[in-house]
Amino acid sequence: MHYPQILENLISYYQKLPGVGEKSAERFALATIELKDEEVEDFSKTLKDAKKNLHRCSICGNITDEEICRICQDSTRDKNLICVLEEYKNIASFEKSQKFTGTYHVLNGLISPVDNRGPEDINLSSLINRINNLQNPELILALKPTIEGEATILYIQKILENKNVTISRLSYGIPMGAEIDYLDNITLEKALEDRKRISE
Amino acid sequence: MHYPQILENLISYYQKLPGVGEKSAERFALATIELKDEEVEDFSKTLKDAKKNLHRCSICGNITDEEICRICQDSTRDKNLICVLEEYKNIASFEKSQKFTGTYHVLNGLISPVDNRGPEDINLSSLINRINNLQNPELILALKPTIEGEATILYIQKILENKNVTISRLSYGIPMGAEIDYLDNITLEKALEDRKRISE
Repeated sequence: MHYPQILENLISYYQKLPGVGEKSAERFALATIELKDEEVEDFSKTLKDAKKNLHRCSICGNITDEEICRICQDSTRDKNLICVLEEYKNIASFEKSQKFTGTYHVLNGLISPVDNRGPEDINLSSLINRINNLQNPELILALKPTIEGEATILYIQKILENKNVTISRLSYGIPMGAEIDYLDNITLEKALEDRKRISE
Repeated sequence: MHYPQILENLISYYQKLPGVGEKSAERFALATIELKDEEVEDFSKTLKDAKKNLHRCSICGNITDEEICRICQDSTRDKNLICVLEEYKNIASFEKSQKFTGTYHVLNGLISPVDNRGPEDINLSSLINRINNLQNPELILALKPTIEGEATILYIQKILENKNVTISRLSYGIPMGAEIDYLDNITLEKALEDRKRISE
């Protein structure tokens, strides 16, 4: 305890942020008190307001400060095309690329028997509801290639078996710019399996 | 702009912290809204209060929430021994070692002709005042070994020439645990110059 109590308190709050250790938290706290009065005032207000006003979109589970998120509200987006994601954070990656014109569905987790997380613990029933109300729904499962991701993909595939819905998953393979030498075996195996024909 | 405005605002505030880029700020903001309501409430309050209540100690320039900092208030500390530092942040390093029982004086900068910063731009006159009120003052100049640090050391030496004050600087040399092979020339040169006799 070399600093005044209020400064120590601020440091310990910064340490609650992901990947922020004691040294960084100290730097952040000291930098904070160097900011202008009105900046700190507004930072403090923004923090409180963000927590108060943000919640999940009632359709897709994206984060929003309205009842329905901006993507679900957008009439230009294809409501029949739904990209299924683990977390709402993943949406940003797709939106940045500006290639995807459909909507999203955030599962808020993946099925994981090891962690005792079953299909009822993730945001799946609302996905089924959405699909039931669509004419020609198409699902893109953009889940990470892990045991949990695969388990979730298999489960979704199974429960939608008898429904009129097109399902695809993201392709697995070599990431752009990678050196073949440095690739792990499993990625290489998947890239072979999923190889794409380029001549007739 | 993939997030609600309030979330974007929070992200941009986190980006004002040192070394925090867009990605980290995003992670911090998303983690913030996962915190408990009362935690965010208190974080927000702490931020505002820290800015409002913290200022410089009127004696030494350390950061404090009182008129005079805890170190200057402490009657067990040797008031005749003053360790001169560039920034109040440096105090923490000395306090952590628990070896220093004197007091501090924070210059809040160093003399730097290149940056047009002269002796009157740093917290020097109050140091002279402190020394004038002491019987047998001793100064330890703990300034970094750069052109600015050396310039400041030389200046302090010069203005205190005719006063009854003992002045020393930190020793230069090899840092503990370093490999001789990897040392830069200047450090090695200084370590030779400042070599310490260990036998008669």
